[in-house]
Amino acid sequence: MNNETKKIPYKIYLEEHEMPTQYYNVRADMKKKPAPLLNPGTLQPMTFDELRGVFCDELVKQELDDTTAYFDIPQEIQEFYKMYRPAPLVRAYCLEERLQTPAKIYYKFEGNNTSGSHKLNSAIAQAYYAKEQGLKGVTTETGAGQWGTALSMACAYLGLDCDVYMVKVSYEQKPFRREVMRTYGAKVTPSPSESTAVGRKILADHPGTTGSLGCAISEAVEAATSREGYRYVLGSVLSQVLLHQSIIGLETKTAMDKYGITPDIIIGCAGGGSNLGGLISPFMGEKLRGEKDYRFIAVEPASCPSLTRGKYAYDFCDTGMVCPLSKMYTLGSGFIPSANHAGGLRYHGMSSVLSELYDQGLIEARSVEQTEVFKAAEDFARIEGILPAPESSHAIKAAMDEALKCKETGEEKTILFGLTGTGYFDLKAYEQFNNGQMSDHIPTDEELQISFDGLPRV
Amino acid sequence: MNNETKKIPYKIYLEEHEMPTQYYNVRADMKKKPAPLLNPGTLQPMTFDELRGVFCDELVKQELDDTTAYFDIPQEIQEFYKMYRPAPLVRAYCLEERLQTPAKIYYKFEGNNTSGSHKLNSAIAQAYYAKEQGLKGVTTETGAGQWGTALSMACAYLGLDCDVYMVKVSYEQKPFRREVMRTYGAKVTPSPSESTAVGRKILADHPGTTGSLGCAISEAVEAATSREGYRYVLGSVLSQVLLHQSIIGLETKTAMDKYGITPDIIIGCAGGGSNLGGLISPFMGEKLRGEKDYRFIAVEPASCPSLTRGKYAYDFCDTGMVCPLSKMYTLGSGFIPSANHAGGLRYHGMSSVLSELYDQGLIEARSVEQTEVFKAAEDFARIEGILPAPESSHAIKAAMDEALKCKETGEEKTILFGLTGTGYFDLKAYEQFNNGQMSDHIPTDEELQISFDGLPRV
Repeated sequence: MNNETKKIPYKIYLEEHEMPTQYYNVRADMKKKPAPLLNPGTLQPMTFDELRGVFCDELVKQELDDTTAYFDIPQEIQEFYKMYRPAPLVRAYCLEERLQTPAKIYYKFEGNNTSGSHKLNSAIAQAYYAKEQGLKGVTTETGAGQWGTALSMACAYLGLDCDVYMVKVSYEQKPFRREVMRTYGAKVTPSPSESTAVGRKILADHPGTTGSLGCAISEAVEAATSREGYRYVLGSVLSQVLLHQSIIGLETKTAMDKYGITPDIIIGCAGGGSNLGGLISPFMGEKLRGEKDYRFIAVEPASCPSLTRGKYAYDFCDTGMVCPLSKMYTLGSGFIPSANHAGGLRYHGMSSVLSELYDQGLIEARSVEQTEVFKAAEDFARIEGILPAPESSHAIKAAMDEALKCKETGEEKTILFGLTGTGYFDLKAYEQFNNGQMSDHIPTDEELQISFDGLPRV
Repeated sequence: MNNETKKIPYKIYLEEHEMPTQYYNVRADMKKKPAPLLNPGTLQPMTFDELRGVFCDELVKQELDDTTAYFDIPQEIQEFYKMYRPAPLVRAYCLEERLQTPAKIYYKFEGNNTSGSHKLNSAIAQAYYAKEQGLKGVTTETGAGQWGTALSMACAYLGLDCDVYMVKVSYEQKPFRREVMRTYGAKVTPSPSESTAVGRKILADHPGTTGSLGCAISEAVEAATSREGYRYVLGSVLSQVLLHQSIIGLETKTAMDKYGITPDIIIGCAGGGSNLGGLISPFMGEKLRGEKDYRFIAVEPASCPSLTRGKYAYDFCDTGMVCPLSKMYTLGSGFIPSANHAGGLRYHGMSSVLSELYDQGLIEARSVEQTEVFKAAEDFARIEGILPAPESSHAIKAAMDEALKCKETGEEKTILFGLTGTGYFDLKAYEQFNNGQMSDHIPTDEELQISFDGLPRV
């Protein structure tokens, strides 16, 4: 399908007028919808009124709407996007040459902003709706710090308070992330902390824990719901976040269409699913509507393999069990992954949208081990000149593997992957890799079984 | 002169085919040329043969040529540039609005690459010519680490050895910079070190020194000239570096011309002068040829004020006095500036090209104090969404000051400044600023006089 008569530049930037003005909601095209969030007390679907104490109203509407295909992007958000978007779609000519592959490799690079990742796309949307509702501020969790930084930037821009609970292991490994957030005026607390009831309980039950996204979510939710004028915001997992992140896929598709490029394989790293979901959304829409076919590959860390080794079941989104139940591929909300440096992927569950698509066989998944991921990251940095985030490097590894398969078979496949962010705040991890001291823990079946035993009975 | 009927986008990206294919040598248009480099022994102009032991041949030719206006950019360098260039020319709509200024503010953003700054533009050129000459590797110094990172990236891409002497204060403040360089395969040594004769001498004379660019240069030169197959490369100061960095100004001018924009004031931070020189080159060319007029402003740290308080005299480029003599504005090669966090600006001298232009009254200069610079940096980060490098923030501060003057006078001036890089590796400094613990030392007249007394008698 490639129109190679038109020379493809190294980087395709859309013009401002070509940028998306609407988000795309992939749920609208799913015949079998993702299962609804359940109230853990009644086991009934969460209603608008139940959710609006936690999330601001407009976001609850987006969360619950699985039939509207397009949502207008408010003008102020569109203007903010113009500060750092469109993100480039890059043709990886150098990587192709180095791998000696007939495959054509493209990546959508979301790291050209100070938060260092795609997270800013949803942060500005969530902060905007909170501001519109007249709220004072928002609370959130952050793993690697990318989401917290993104939210800090959005809140600084709009003049909102920003309270961030940062997973303790990342807080310690990435002290400079904290300073970026502080520079943007945010308050940053390592989680679990003594500042919330749920944090104190987690500390009592697991002394010395290095935390997890699940714990930090519980604390941030408590910090939002126990005060006036605050709401909780989440950087991934939720359907509203995938909606906002659809801008990644929409821009990518517009750029590819402009040059007559059709990807055969679309690859993304998967933690909570926000990048993968956003990248694949418009392509998946075509597949769901029977217009085109694509292979989609989710790549997760072997140390936190929710899709490849998890169960498809209702579970809490958070370790403290204060959040609604979501039907998803999960390792159990009690699962605390090893200190894998891809902090953004250390989440026990997965977006309910992606979980349902995976369960329907529309997405493939694979897991990769950390040292292999850093090897791919280092190669990529040297060849393509971008130091990737460990999270993103999971997708790089899979893309390189697929390109090498093409070398064996001689197939000229077009591979697209999401390069979600940069690794400038992950140098502690790179240092361990450079020193040959990287370690990883892949959970045993017994460890997973213990965690599964704790799943709520629904 | 602005053609406001054509709406100016937030970011102007040139198309690949609009990117410069030649470097511009501003010296060709200078009636009074910069003074030549002198051999410190004979006090005669350095010849090609004397310089080729230190620099590779093609670069010596570029260094000595003050009449050829354009040099072709080799195809391989052009291809490398396409990986991270064109750099965006950004219209600072948000900053204008926040300052409530009638001024139109533009910045050329050079931070969208892993080295985090414009330094990569010259690094790839210098590494390329070394490779073409069949050398094994290159040595260099680095201050803040941006140049060292850039050179590491260029060397990794081309398969050259890369030995970096990093100013000790930066090495300690920015441990993660070291890891980026190592990830790109470079060897990094804190300077002054025990690994060179000149390093040992500096350590003996100044025990406990935190180093300076001048010291690190001496060590890197020794490390290059005492081995077969190596040459020294320098990230700033030299005329060849300004030549390569002219790509900044050429791209900027092409983008502005495309939209009918003419800057009134062009501002850049000034350490050794590579960014400022590169940014202003084509505009200065027009001024020198009498075609147009512009105001040019160099901004330097008050702690290292070579233009505003230095002497225009022949001096060593390095503290160890192993380099040729250059006529430049200098604080004396023995001057060791306080640990100002803008490591890239901690250099005692200034590009001979810029020094001569300044002496002819064609450039203005001002110095700014560090805490004010960080205040401007923080404001800029919150308003424009980019966390700037401390070096770049000197230009931001001056640009904001000029925009505020326009607010007072009501003048709709067009201000262009160079945003040379990002501050992701400067969080230690931001932390001190956030904690209200930033300090700076502005040299006293007595301190400067002691340093001037050490100037060589030429």
